[in-house]
Amino acid sequence: MVKASIIGANGYTGLELMNILSAHKSVTITHLVSVSNKSTRITDMYPSLVGLKDSFFEGVDDLDAISKDSDVIFSCLPHAASAELCGKLFERGVKIIDLSADFRYDSRSVYEKTYKTLHPYPELLNLAAYGLPELYKEKIKKASIVGNPGCYTTCSILPLYPLVKEGIIDADNIIIDAKSGTSGAGKKAETSGLFAEVNENFKAYGVAVHRHTSEIEQEISNAAGRDIALSFTPHLLPVTRGILATIHLKPIIDIDEHGIYEVYRKYYANQPFVLFSLDKLPSLNCVKYSNYISIGFVLDKRLRRLIVVSCIDNLIKGASGQAVQNMNIMFGLDETEGLRMQPRHL
Amino acid sequence: MVKASIIGANGYTGLELMNILSAHKSVTITHLVSVSNKSTRITDMYPSLVGLKDSFFEGVDDLDAISKDSDVIFSCLPHAASAELCGKLFERGVKIIDLSADFRYDSRSVYEKTYKTLHPYPELLNLAAYGLPELYKEKIKKASIVGNPGCYTTCSILPLYPLVKEGIIDADNIIIDAKSGTSGAGKKAETSGLFAEVNENFKAYGVAVHRHTSEIEQEISNAAGRDIALSFTPHLLPVTRGILATIHLKPIIDIDEHGIYEVYRKYYANQPFVLFSLDKLPSLNCVKYSNYISIGFVLDKRLRRLIVVSCIDNLIKGASGQAVQNMNIMFGLDETEGLRMQPRHL
Amino acid sequence: MVKASIIGANGYTGLELMNILSAHKSVTITHLVSVSNKSTRITDMYPSLVGLKDSFFEGVDDLDAISKDSDVIFSCLPHAASAELCGKLFERGVKIIDLSADFRYDSRSVYEKTYKTLHPYPELLNLAAYGLPELYKEKIKKASIVGNPGCYTTCSILPLYPLVKEGIIDADNIIIDAKSGTSGAGKKAETSGLFAEVNENFKAYGVAVHRHTSEIEQEISNAAGRDIALSFTPHLLPVTRGILATIHLKPIIDIDEHGIYEVYRKYYANQPFVLFSLDKLPSLNCVKYSNYISIGFVLDKRLRRLIVVSCIDNLIKGASGQAVQNMNIMFGLDETEGLRMQPRHL
Amino acid sequence: MVKASIIGANGYTGLELMNILSAHKSVTITHLVSVSNKSTRITDMYPSLVGLKDSFFEGVDDLDAISKDSDVIFSCLPHAASAELCGKLFERGVKIIDLSADFRYDSRSVYEKTYKTLHPYPELLNLAAYGLPELYKEKIKKASIVGNPGCYTTCSILPLYPLVKEGIIDADNIIIDAKSGTSGAGKKAETSGLFAEVNENFKAYGVAVHRHTSEIEQEISNAAGRDIALSFTPHLLPVTRGILATIHLKPIIDIDEHGIYEVYRKYYANQPFVLFSLDKLPSLNCVKYSNYISIGFVLDKRLRRLIVVSCIDNLIKGASGQAVQNMNIMFGLDETEGLRMQPRHL
Repeated sequence: MVKASIIGANGYTGLELMNILSAHKSVTITHLVSVSNKSTRITDMYPSLVGLKDSFFEGVDDLDAISKDSDVIFSCLPHAASAELCGKLFERGVKIIDLSADFRYDSRSVYEKTYKTLHPYPELLNLAAYGLPELYKEKIKKASIVGNPGCYTTCSILPLYPLVKEGIIDADNIIIDAKSGTSGAGKKAETSGLFAEVNENFKAYGVAVHRHTSEIEQEISNAAGRDIALSFTPHLLPVTRGILATIHLKPIIDIDEHGIYEVYRKYYANQPFVLFSLDKLPSLNCVKYSNYISIGFVLDKRLRRLIVVSCIDNLIKGASGQAVQNMNIMFGLDETEGLRMQPRHL
Repeated sequence: MVKASIIGANGYTGLELMNILSAHKSVTITHLVSVSNKSTRITDMYPSLVGLKDSFFEGVDDLDAISKDSDVIFSCLPHAASAELCGKLFERGVKIIDLSADFRYDSRSVYEKTYKTLHPYPELLNLAAYGLPELYKEKIKKASIVGNPGCYTTCSILPLYPLVKEGIIDADNIIIDAKSGTSGAGKKAETSGLFAEVNENFKAYGVAVHRHTSEIEQEISNAAGRDIALSFTPHLLPVTRGILATIHLKPIIDIDEHGIYEVYRKYYANQPFVLFSLDKLPSLNCVKYSNYISIGFVLDKRLRRLIVVSCIDNLIKGASGQAVQNMNIMFGLDETEGLRMQPRHL
Repeated sequence: MVKASIIGANGYTGLELMNILSAHKSVTITHLVSVSNKSTRITDMYPSLVGLKDSFFEGVDDLDAISKDSDVIFSCLPHAASAELCGKLFERGVKIIDLSADFRYDSRSVYEKTYKTLHPYPELLNLAAYGLPELYKEKIKKASIVGNPGCYTTCSILPLYPLVKEGIIDADNIIIDAKSGTSGAGKKAETSGLFAEVNENFKAYGVAVHRHTSEIEQEISNAAGRDIALSFTPHLLPVTRGILATIHLKPIIDIDEHGIYEVYRKYYANQPFVLFSLDKLPSLNCVKYSNYISIGFVLDKRLRRLIVVSCIDNLIKGASGQAVQNMNIMFGLDETEGLRMQPRHL
Repeated sequence: MVKASIIGANGYTGLELMNILSAHKSVTITHLVSVSNKSTRITDMYPSLVGLKDSFFEGVDDLDAISKDSDVIFSCLPHAASAELCGKLFERGVKIIDLSADFRYDSRSVYEKTYKTLHPYPELLNLAAYGLPELYKEKIKKASIVGNPGCYTTCSILPLYPLVKEGIIDADNIIIDAKSGTSGAGKKAETSGLFAEVNENFKAYGVAVHRHTSEIEQEISNAAGRDIALSFTPHLLPVTRGILATIHLKPIIDIDEHGIYEVYRKYYANQPFVLFSLDKLPSLNCVKYSNYISIGFVLDKRLRRLIVVSCIDNLIKGASGQAVQNMNIMFGLDETEGLRMQPRHL
């Protein structure tokens, strides 16, 4: 059994991790840390977590104790605070899966510029694997620190990577128009997140300045073998879960739908959580409550353009499910263990 | 032209008042006060208020100045804070329409017990009219202070009053099962109000202890001519606007549907904002975005029970629309001026 | 392995059954019947059912073939049509779990009066068990036909039964004010079910005439040992899943909260899917996506009234989950097999 | 007083027209036609239309009678059926505002190719004005037939036209990523429109083949002075009202934000229903329930791209409000009469 602990367990990614891990057959949960909710019974905050009805949130006072009986720690803290703590836990010999942005970047300067903060443990950036198993499974297997990707980034990189790597599309003309449910904004009490503000509303935000842009660009640059800059425009959907990205592309070779489908087959046929289709576009209800990403596309022959649509559940494949997938890989478990939930149409 | 000001204009009842008053033909808005948003352009907070695009929120520093060019002040402050300020403004000769609970009670002690605070101006309670125009139009005409009723209370009292007053139903067995949209909780940033918490959820709250109970009981006791205690159970609906109350009653006389309809006709046939029906039950989309209350009922002959259903828009008939209706009456204007918006089915 | 087939698999209860059964370790799905969608690939209609990606809907032409390789058949057909087919399948020796109303009634005449149709197989009514495992587990174990309870009825009977049986409350003054999500209305294309009609709306319907009333009365009469008539008022919530029932009661003995809690403990302490609490009221997000029912209550000492609140997921504990729970019991499997999904807070 | 009639009044654009026209000071409604609901009381279908409580839907049996006492007829029929009837009414001397696509096209062949039908009155296409008042007010003033624009098209053309006409952006690289509320799909009873299917879901549809593409291209080609083909991708939002279009563009001249703002000022400063901003992006709650379009933009200096965001209420500026705006212009009334509703933040 893998002994797993969660730091920052009270937020929505923590909630989702508790949900998945408490049903995972090869995991024992050892510590659920929430400084602001220390000593609160878990089910007082989340009655839905029936399986944790005798558990309480702990503080983070004794790192030695937490490290000692944890094989892996999931950190759901905000960036900077997360690296600060993860660094200390790593020094104590625990494996780390960090859901913040702190270990996602190859380049310290890109991280520091994007997040406008100094990295407290820059020396760990080289050690950390980028936790997108469909691209980096071998690195993740050997990693002791994994930087778990962002939600928008997972939904953007996976459909784009093969098309760029194979030279199918013009990598200098990538336009990602993405739409996310509100759970992506987390559990902070802010007026802008109130039901009355979000319901029956829809808006773009962070246009041209959203932080996930640099993370997507890092991976698409890897695919292209050169620096790529791309346009990323996020929107806030009045739904709780799910991201749909509509990606507007320009093919640069003569290719038909079957050719594009074969590209995806080449990269993802053996990936257990990637669904892709020749003739159907996914919608949120094809993936929500599951760890799948679903990819579809339309080749617009009239305009010689390619529109790719991808969907994930932002809290699962976009956060906690992917984190558990990474854990499974790091500990030699079946990659799908604990993650076999089917999507929910309703 | 009536010069009107709003204190606490930034919240949702303030928003609704600004919306109604800025289109009201006999009103000039003179001051829009929001201490926490002083000097903010109104349309920076609410771009929808196109008609106020050159207006700014003010502070409340100079009560003399505000009083001087206001014929009437609407207070949207929280209870206790509201009376504190309304008392001072009243002393300066301005008419007051208070949307808090501070001037709704005949009895100081019931108010103080319910709201667990001392009333700063108890001597004004006798002067104040309870602002339910369908029952107290004559008092309101002459009043200088109006305590504008609560949202749940408006939706409960209007369908019940005639039935109790006429001795149709057992006043000792009144069960009000009410459901409200989330705008009723206002604009406070609280985790429990986040979209992800309210969406796809439904719950009862304040069961057996909700403050509006005592306000409903005050008016139903007036109707009965004796002290009435009743059961009031509110719920939180995942919609932005609207209250629906399902009222479970026991008839104590032999009466059929037509008899009940006639009772409503007797009380409300000439009330411009009361809709009632012999054979249809209202739903939220019969009233939302309007100042109407709609009342329907089913006589369950099998059980000899009466189920009454009433609906209002909580922000309009349940708050700001009713406040403007009161203003119209206080200033001798047409009662419907500024309030002729039809309900919105969609 | 239990060989299971579903008739009427394309609707929402069928969808939920396919979802549960395709992950059930002791079940092999043999036939998925949908006459109107014969030969359609399941994932063309429901891409979410990833586990059924090579399955197709069948017609119902050859009952012998279906019976031959089915140990149990779940019928999701409408009432009357369901009994018609279930009777024929039963004659061929298959066990039946019918999700329609056709086998829920002890009394043919109550069924025929309620559903305004003749029962095609009245002789089977006595054989059938009422599939509420918390009350009738022993009967269900031995049954070859189970009438799976309605959604409103499950949510109403389970909280009421112990209180009536133990003589705690006045069984002649039961008022159930219930609120259901829209998936309860099924997948029929009707204008009244359109998003624009349901969204931001709320209404009561079927007041004093809803068919589930007679089913609830049957079981509460069983508890009381005499004929009970009760008031049941359903409402349509703008959510996809979930039922919340607010039950207004009058205690007839001197009892406190602990006493009521003990009554629930006596009946449900060993029932794996019943959650109950001394001091918290459930909301939809305590149960949705799970097979749990959650029960809470408030004793209103001022009025000497008792308000009980119960919640279920209408598609799971209110339909398909309960059907699988019944199957587990009928076939000697662990009652919770395939049903261990935790509720989803989000 | 203008005597106005509506054909196909029972659908959602008809509902919105009834709502606007019944409060319009210079209009008398003479006929409300709905063949499928002939003799139904309007408020039995739409209780919200309190102002029409004594009106009934009529059939369309006697075109002479309808024509005789109508100065203008709004047709809300589907395409082809609409032209068929509008042609006959036009021959009887009535002015026509057609909300279908039948009179929107300059080119018969583009219409017939797009809508896959023969045009029954192709000779009327030249007479008809395209009812976008911000671009064609003078034509509309003199027109006897107006083809009222589509919802997506209004939201796309108005932000694009000035940028193309002034040569600011590359007209061969226009990408419109549009998102619409479900009322745009009308009131047809279809499974895909059910609450449970739309709620908590989001999808692209009609990718590369949506009919509104050709209508947008017609107007953008007019602006460019040459044939333009553009990419239009619509999505279905789980909201009732509103369209937001995110338009991805490539500037071809050296221009800053102020320059772009000045372009919009040049075209729209005197247009009463166009809001535009230098530094804010609109969201649906800036326009819903009003006849405004709101336009904002971000110039992405890093990528030298321009992202324009525009919002309308699809039923008002995208359909019935614009139709009334056209009527006002055709009859020499104040363009804003009956359309001064402010947007609703909530």
